[in-house]
Amino acid sequence: MGLRIGSIVWDIGAGTGSVAIEAARIASQGRVYAVDRDDANSHLLEQNVKKYGDGRVSVIIGEAPGVLANLPDPDAAFIGGGGRALPEILVAVVPRLRPAGRVVANFAAIERANFAYKSLRDAGMSPELTMVTAARGRELPDGALRLESMNPVFVVWGQR
Amino acid sequence: MGLRIGSIVWDIGAGTGSVAIEAARIASQGRVYAVDRDDANSHLLEQNVKKYGDGRVSVIIGEAPGVLANLPDPDAAFIGGGGRALPEILVAVVPRLRPAGRVVANFAAIERANFAYKSLRDAGMSPELTMVTAARGRELPDGALRLESMNPVFVVWGQR
Amino acid sequence: MGLRIGSIVWDIGAGTGSVAIEAARIASQGRVYAVDRDDANSHLLEQNVKKYGDGRVSVIIGEAPGVLANLPDPDAAFIGGGGRALPEILVAVVPRLRPAGRVVANFAAIERANFAYKSLRDAGMSPELTMVTAARGRELPDGALRLESMNPVFVVWGQR
Amino acid sequence: MGLRIGSIVWDIGAGTGSVAIEAARIASQGRVYAVDRDDANSHLLEQNVKKYGDGRVSVIIGEAPGVLANLPDPDAAFIGGGGRALPEILVAVVPRLRPAGRVVANFAAIERANFAYKSLRDAGMSPELTMVTAARGRELPDGALRLESMNPVFVVWGQR
Repeated sequence: MGLRIGSIVWDIGAGTGSVAIEAARIASQGRVYAVDRDDANSHLLEQNVKKYGDGRVSVIIGEAPGVLANLPDPDAAFIGGGGRALPEILVAVVPRLRPAGRVVANFAAIERANFAYKSLRDAGMSPELTMVTAARGRELPDGALRLESMNPVFVVWGQR
Repeated sequence: MGLRIGSIVWDIGAGTGSVAIEAARIASQGRVYAVDRDDANSHLLEQNVKKYGDGRVSVIIGEAPGVLANLPDPDAAFIGGGGRALPEILVAVVPRLRPAGRVVANFAAIERANFAYKSLRDAGMSPELTMVTAARGRELPDGALRLESMNPVFVVWGQR
Repeated sequence: MGLRIGSIVWDIGAGTGSVAIEAARIASQGRVYAVDRDDANSHLLEQNVKKYGDGRVSVIIGEAPGVLANLPDPDAAFIGGGGRALPEILVAVVPRLRPAGRVVANFAAIERANFAYKSLRDAGMSPELTMVTAARGRELPDGALRLESMNPVFVVWGQR
Repeated sequence: MGLRIGSIVWDIGAGTGSVAIEAARIASQGRVYAVDRDDANSHLLEQNVKKYGDGRVSVIIGEAPGVLANLPDPDAAFIGGGGRALPEILVAVVPRLRPAGRVVANFAAIERANFAYKSLRDAGMSPELTMVTAARGRELPDGALRLESMNPVFVVWGQR
């Protein structure tokens, strides 16, 4: 994802913080902002960040895009889930990206992925969309493996 | 699957009979043998064949490969499921195929598919293996579609 | 695809006729209309239909949807490829479907598939969308199999 | 992949070094051994490691498993490609893993993946196998996206 030692990272829809924490390991002289709404995971997010975030992750509880206004411009922005607010969030994030900054978003919904791709293209980027499907091996009673599919995920990204 | 108007078809592991019945529509002057073990579906198989089989499907309840011995040689053999008896069934079916006859087998288990491919190759065929994965569109609350994956199926076939 | 012995079938974007010919085998007292524009395949389509169509397939060379106006209403309509004219073709086909009639369309383009799904839903159907991905086994130099993916295809269908 | 700040990492089949370099960013007080045979990429591997390896990546040119004998035991071992030497390499790597150490291997060949899974299981691990398929969006002439599949990759991993 092009993270560097001094990167400023936004992780929007941070969930339990795993992406933010991983990012903080690479951006070891940077700063990560883990943004999510106030919900059942908020406490876990705070805990995980305290325990594993190496002091470089700030938790921001609130609704994107509103809550992004006060953050420093990012070198990289991750957008997870997105839901219906995605168009607004993308519109708010793209102009905030620093030079050569990247935005990466994950979607389950086909048309939200398609919309994101076109939004990035309309913003002058050369975006990419990739659908990723994984299937896990599960042992049958005789030890032979069958494959159990996970649902496809669409990943859309662009660089300024 | 190369069925013709006069084809003799074996459907081994016939389940509720849908493949056998479809085959009987194409092989309209042929004969289809729907073979399966005695289980919870047997009654349904008998019923479906009586109702939709156009009088061209015979139900054979019993264990393959033993029960295949008395059937006329097939132009096409479908093997579903297979389970642990697959090696034996394949070994019994391949030499029974009529000239230009085909065998098609479906597998969930990776190594049974691999084994089937190699068995057909060792029997002098030029077999093919295809993995098929399907994902169904499901509506999210706002009407957008996400994709729900079904598990991969391996299809192996060969022609004499 | 729910074809029956007396079905009237439209195959729009018939290509070389393989779907039309297969349909004619099942609809053995029905009629199949293989529709395609005048192009490099037209001659092959005519030839294949003459050779394998059992006298039940009519070839219609011309642009859909215009050319559909004079055909009898279908029990089943297949739309292949579609391209940019798809919206128009769907709009023309759906109201022509006979009671319980089905339309099935294949797409490579994500948003055309999505559009088709929504058009059928807006027309009062309960459509389904399935993405199908296949991967073929290819032998490596030592005989082991790797998988070579074909591109995903979106299949959208609905019943009146 | 469970890398930590002080991890010792083996990257067997290092290619151009991208995995080794990424690992060195996370294992910022550890050491990465990038192992590959002498081939067309060797020069590029040396160059990349010099340029981006932060002084924590050692390049080892030679044939695995022989060349692994003199390396310190790893916390994590990546095995790429593998080819026919895979059984030998796995047999050499597993007993060398430090406590809680992990091995991750990538395969194109179905049965080599299956073999690796079973080798790890036989070595007392609870391995996992995942097949990953990706498809990239490509723009059609009218700007709509179709999906272009990459070939499936099997990832097998286990922890001591």
